Amino acid sequence: MKNIFDLLYEDDMKFGDITSELIVPQDLTICAKVIAKEDGIIAGVEYLSEKIDLFDLKMKVEKKDGETIHKGDVVVHLEGNAQKILAVERVFLNILGRMSGIATASKRMVEKVRNINSKVRIAATRKTLFGMLDKVAVKIGGGDMHRWGLSDHILIKDNHLALVELEEAINKVKNVSFVRKVEVEVETVEDAIIAAELGVDIIMLDNFTPSQIKEVVEILRNKDLRDNVLLEASGRINEDNIESYAKYDLDIISMGFITHSAKSLDFSMDFK
Amino acid sequence: MKNIFDLLYEDDMKFGDITSELIVPQDLTICAKVIAKEDGIIAGVEYLSEKIDLFDLKMKVEKKDGETIHKGDVVVHLEGNAQKILAVERVFLNILGRMSGIATASKRMVEKVRNINSKVRIAATRKTLFGMLDKVAVKIGGGDMHRWGLSDHILIKDNHLALVELEEAINKVKNVSFVRKVEVEVETVEDAIIAAELGVDIIMLDNFTPSQIKEVVEILRNKDLRDNVLLEASGRINEDNIESYAKYDLDIISMGFITHSAKSLDFSMDFK
Amino acid sequence: MKNIFDLLYEDDMKFGDITSELIVPQDLTICAKVIAKEDGIIAGVEYLSEKIDLFDLKMKVEKKDGETIHKGDVVVHLEGNAQKILAVERVFLNILGRMSGIATASKRMVEKVRNINSKVRIAATRKTLFGMLDKVAVKIGGGDMHRWGLSDHILIKDNHLALVELEEAINKVKNVSFVRKVEVEVETVEDAIIAAELGVDIIMLDNFTPSQIKEVVEILRNKDLRDNVLLEASGRINEDNIESYAKYDLDIISMGFITHSAKSLDFSMDFK
Amino acid sequence: MKNIFDLLYEDDMKFGDITSELIVPQDLTICAKVIAKEDGIIAGVEYLSEKIDLFDLKMKVEKKDGETIHKGDVVVHLEGNAQKILAVERVFLNILGRMSGIATASKRMVEKVRNINSKVRIAATRKTLFGMLDKVAVKIGGGDMHRWGLSDHILIKDNHLALVELEEAINKVKNVSFVRKVEVEVETVEDAIIAAELGVDIIMLDNFTPSQIKEVVEILRNKDLRDNVLLEASGRINEDNIESYAKYDLDIISMGFITHSAKSLDFSMDFK
Amino acid sequence: MKNIFDLLYEDDMKFGDITSELIVPQDLTICAKVIAKEDGIIAGVEYLSEKIDLFDLKMKVEKKDGETIHKGDVVVHLEGNAQKILAVERVFLNILGRMSGIATASKRMVEKVRNINSKVRIAATRKTLFGMLDKVAVKIGGGDMHRWGLSDHILIKDNHLALVELEEAINKVKNVSFVRKVEVEVETVEDAIIAAELGVDIIMLDNFTPSQIKEVVEILRNKDLRDNVLLEASGRINEDNIESYAKYDLDIISMGFITHSAKSLDFSMDFK
Amino acid sequence: MKNIFDLLYEDDMKFGDITSELIVPQDLTICAKVIAKEDGIIAGVEYLSEKIDLFDLKMKVEKKDGETIHKGDVVVHLEGNAQKILAVERVFLNILGRMSGIATASKRMVEKVRNINSKVRIAATRKTLFGMLDKVAVKIGGGDMHRWGLSDHILIKDNHLALVELEEAINKVKNVSFVRKVEVEVETVEDAIIAAELGVDIIMLDNFTPSQIKEVVEILRNKDLRDNVLLEASGRINEDNIESYAKYDLDIISMGFITHSAKSLDFSMDFK
Repeated sequence: MKNIFDLLYEDDMKFGDITSELIVPQDLTICAKVIAKEDGIIAGVEYLSEKIDLFDLKMKVEKKDGETIHKGDVVVHLEGNAQKILAVERVFLNILGRMSGIATASKRMVEKVRNINSKVRIAATRKTLFGMLDKVAVKIGGGDMHRWGLSDHILIKDNHLALVELEEAINKVKNVSFVRKVEVEVETVEDAIIAAELGVDIIMLDNFTPSQIKEVVEILRNKDLRDNVLLEASGRINEDNIESYAKYDLDIISMGFITHSAKSLDFSMDFK
Repeated sequence: MKNIFDLLYEDDMKFGDITSELIVPQDLTICAKVIAKEDGIIAGVEYLSEKIDLFDLKMKVEKKDGETIHKGDVVVHLEGNAQKILAVERVFLNILGRMSGIATASKRMVEKVRNINSKVRIAATRKTLFGMLDKVAVKIGGGDMHRWGLSDHILIKDNHLALVELEEAINKVKNVSFVRKVEVEVETVEDAIIAAELGVDIIMLDNFTPSQIKEVVEILRNKDLRDNVLLEASGRINEDNIESYAKYDLDIISMGFITHSAKSLDFSMDFK
Repeated sequence: MKNIFDLLYEDDMKFGDITSELIVPQDLTICAKVIAKEDGIIAGVEYLSEKIDLFDLKMKVEKKDGETIHKGDVVVHLEGNAQKILAVERVFLNILGRMSGIATASKRMVEKVRNINSKVRIAATRKTLFGMLDKVAVKIGGGDMHRWGLSDHILIKDNHLALVELEEAINKVKNVSFVRKVEVEVETVEDAIIAAELGVDIIMLDNFTPSQIKEVVEILRNKDLRDNVLLEASGRINEDNIESYAKYDLDIISMGFITHSAKSLDFSMDFK
Repeated sequence: MKNIFDLLYEDDMKFGDITSELIVPQDLTICAKVIAKEDGIIAGVEYLSEKIDLFDLKMKVEKKDGETIHKGDVVVHLEGNAQKILAVERVFLNILGRMSGIATASKRMVEKVRNINSKVRIAATRKTLFGMLDKVAVKIGGGDMHRWGLSDHILIKDNHLALVELEEAINKVKNVSFVRKVEVEVETVEDAIIAAELGVDIIMLDNFTPSQIKEVVEILRNKDLRDNVLLEASGRINEDNIESYAKYDLDIISMGFITHSAKSLDFSMDFK
Repeated sequence: MKNIFDLLYEDDMKFGDITSELIVPQDLTICAKVIAKEDGIIAGVEYLSEKIDLFDLKMKVEKKDGETIHKGDVVVHLEGNAQKILAVERVFLNILGRMSGIATASKRMVEKVRNINSKVRIAATRKTLFGMLDKVAVKIGGGDMHRWGLSDHILIKDNHLALVELEEAINKVKNVSFVRKVEVEVETVEDAIIAAELGVDIIMLDNFTPSQIKEVVEILRNKDLRDNVLLEASGRINEDNIESYAKYDLDIISMGFITHSAKSLDFSMDFK
Repeated sequence: MKNIFDLLYEDDMKFGDITSELIVPQDLTICAKVIAKEDGIIAGVEYLSEKIDLFDLKMKVEKKDGETIHKGDVVVHLEGNAQKILAVERVFLNILGRMSGIATASKRMVEKVRNINSKVRIAATRKTLFGMLDKVAVKIGGGDMHRWGLSDHILIKDNHLALVELEEAINKVKNVSFVRKVEVEVETVEDAIIAAELGVDIIMLDNFTPSQIKEVVEILRNKDLRDNVLLEASGRINEDNIESYAKYDLDIISMGFITHSAKSLDFSMDFK
């Protein structure tokens, strides 16, 4: 993930930037401005500044990750060798646009739920394109990154449960290590209750309707299990229906929407 | 580009898929179906089948790259070790969804222009997320991949021309090698004519209005230069306005729209 | 970690195994036996069998990871190209010896505490030589691998607390993500109580005497906090004093002893 | 070998040091002291200083490789970014501890034989964990590194001789190149004599008793062959019995003992 | 290609330059002169100066790529750490000698044809040893690099035509992308005419005699096709017969001779 | 070195072989013959067969490394996927041509000296293009590879002696390890004698005239030192003057001539 920049850059530069090498003097130093062409939340600046460092280019940050930006804002200045700036231009803008698009969508969701339920968190799913970079963008937008990969916490999903019974699955993962949390994805109210009774740390309520969520919460409260477990709603939640979920006693709402449907934010790079 | 799968997969699997290793028997063989959850054009099957091979999984292709698919269609079957299928599931679906989303958008554009102007081609820009993979998806959708990177053909862009005069730039790149074409991006009718007179192979008309395009074509015809050069329109062309461009005598319409604004197509993987 | 074999093998084979290439016929197929020269617990077989696969050698396992072995036991058979077996021989034996040495020491500790306190787990520390491989060996010996690296769960250590106050540190890490546990290393009874009151998941009691541990447990019980937190004893615990710790109400005893002081178990490889 | 640090560090830092990133200010500069907690010979300082350079940390060396250190000695100072120092701390200490443990054991052996036989050298075997790094530590302790890998000098071992007769093997390797020495491992007095008569450069007397060594030396002297060959004793030689070997006319005593049984020397890193 | 230096250097330095490490003080700074021992055209200086930078050595260039040099000329000065200069010496000289040898041969060919036919270009083939580096040397000597690899422009060769008919092959590649040129290698006058009629951009006349070339040119002129296509002669053209080809109306003469038969130019490195 | 094939192949195939992908059916299986177009000694077959294996191509060897070949001989058959054969064709032929050219030149030198002095060996220098591959070719031609790189045996060269006195240099390297030989390059008869007296294993007589060589041999014999040292003549020795050197009592004649001036042997690949 951290190397998505390198991969895209190397692909671009297999044998160098042949146009710039022919046209632009090798030692020319220039300044370039990166300008927002839409309103939103900026994300990717810190990641890109680490990459830019490796090219001996100076980057002056006007807008930090997480700040609100408006059309026309200069977000960063780049200064340095013209051929190098031209070589990174497109990869730089593509990543900045992707991450800012995700942060913008995430922030909008965070704000939608804030007034309804101050406890609930918005979280990413694994429906990403740039893996961890997408998740970092979610975090910059105020969301939770959720697990970082398959080696992180234990998460029993529907396809596991197509192969092994729920109770057996939970029993196999409990006690694997005291440092890891255990989460299970369930598709019925009954399974949610069983999972809570078996002592998992987090229950993902997959494709539950708001009323099913309400039912799960009530049963868990009655059984005095609600405080021992985190409840996460997931599946088909988007900008239009999120508020109907947020009003229930959930800990987390995770949404593929903020990554798989985020539109890139538009930026341009201008040379002075 | 070709390694985007590997990068994402390795990120996911830093220390293995700890959940599956605990739950799923190591030697279990299963069949899985990948199912379309939306209508569109499928893309990525050939790329993914090369990757899947490396995991000793068998993949039976029901829908080939470029075919039309409908909600509910089984697009491929995977057969093999259950832990391996679980390990690749998410990366597989994310790439398939991305590429199919782009192919679907590209095909829609290709069809929009077909009846208006059978000569004009739809082409990708460099506003991609997965670099070459995005461009391959454009091709599968019937578009042209345009240049593959900065080492490909010569393309003089606005930021080059912020540093060097148009004529000087063209003279510097002409004759660099008999195997490479030369393209220049221009922003005015006058520059388009100059470029044609200087003998470039392709002229990119950047942010031209349809009427400016009409004007360029007419002047070039009058000067008997139209047949020596390819004309490419680019910039701010999208689903809504493409038809107003296509009716003029262009060779190529290139569109960031089909990559940066393409929504992932939704697929799921089900275990039998 | 997973690549420790490759690193050592490549170092050995910079320009190939020049002796074997001169002496041993290129196509000679042989069988080799790996024989234990000491009693203990075997570990590394599964890891090595994955590596051996890459050399087109067949490996027949007589003793699986975690089994008790005795001097003279044949633990695995290798069959295949003689030059390849000779090339991997030493790296194979060195890793098998290291991992089995650790598993043997770990198992001895696990058995020492079993009868005294069936709840307490033996865990690895980061005082390893082969990183994750050492931790895998601990697990094979019945221990807990503890965190796998610095990106795993949150663990505030003494050197963090040399820079930031305890409360501030805990407040900074709480709520970072609902998927991660938080652990803090403390050096006094007072700090242990503060950490528990601030709601951390795990408290590492560093260099505590048995009587200090007893005191922490009692205070936490009185405050009704004992069930909300895991208690881990660590520091200067070895084979000789482990029993004096195990009798208290701890969840985990972590020991550098089982990795930094484990002697390699001796194996040889014999050709028939 | 040279990359053991990188391998272990990268394993630790898959997604960064999440605790330090949350707690420690990004720009904080600190000083840290590395302190010996046991007496011994220090080794690894030069190797680690090359690695530390790559992190933009300053390292001030108080004790150089090969120096005697005592409990409580500050061996090096590190100065620089706090997050970076925290990130390398454990790998740094683990490697320093390993190498110093080996150097300490090696030096003890070197001193044991010095007064008995000033000609004989202590040499490493291939029973290592860190490959070349272990051998470098042996050298720092005053020993000989022996061959660095399988591409170095020619060394015919027992498993070669299980496949090819002694004379045939020696004839195959002689004359392979004028730049390489030829060594053969033998298990009987007779084979030692044959090897010397065939003109090998070095004979390894494997698992010979002191009296067998005496016998070999005498026969070679009588045949006027002693000066043409180096004699190396190897196998089951340790701290307790080394003196009984050293008194004979050997050139080299090689010992797995100094690597496979060396205990790590204990160091800690303290922040001011 | 760009990494040929790294590959050769790493091979040389598997475990370091053991002689220099023993003899030369670690901190010694020296100046070294690279001296031409033959007349010719120098090439490789720019490539090598990028590599030298990575060793913290200073390089002062006396003769730039493409300049004429004479026996005894100092071509560059190197200043810096003596061990580092010794480590790169041989790889540096080997690459400089190779590239200069090719540039010298290329320049000689360019000059041979200049007065006979000012339009014709000398081009490289793929009969190289260092791939792109050889082609860069051809360019420095005044030639054309031709395609850089198999992903560049379309080039249908004899072995393709052993599998597919000429017309079918050309039809399959036309229209693949508007950014790529299409070239076809033909072996008869008839096929050359067919290729021109099918609209390829470049025709390679493989192993044509001068009189066959003359015939092709005449037919194409008669058919008014000569201006739409570039003509390239290739095969068995060398220093002795090049002039008999150059007098015809060709655009390009490509010659394996300038790479596969170029003798390295001799340089030495002297320490002051 | 071993990876020169991979480097050249990857350079060629950055984005695949675009011509073959368009023209040649993906599943087509073909046979190809590699044919010698000149007489000589073949070399590279074994190296290339390892590489070819990785492409799932079958290679049937008609002429093994070291065999004499004649114009028109089929040297190997390749069978397998047509696109793969086309992709490797040029790299395959370039390496085969290079190595065979060197083997041919080496064999000619070996045969020149055989009747004059049966003891003397022909050896490579470091004036190579493909590093180890060039040296392997020398060996196939009957020569000695000399040292493989800078980590091999100790070789004190002229540039070392520009920095350190001869005696000091030799004393610094002696006793560095019992497994390594020590060689020194000298430029005067006096230094040759000093080196022998100091006990080095090999003396390289650099740019000595035949009469100087004669003188060195005589003095060493008189001092009874001739049998303790190997004598290597080097510098300006080529096909024309080698016989005047070979008649003296030398052990080795090393020649840059057989690598830096070897012409590639010509091969072609034909499809049936």
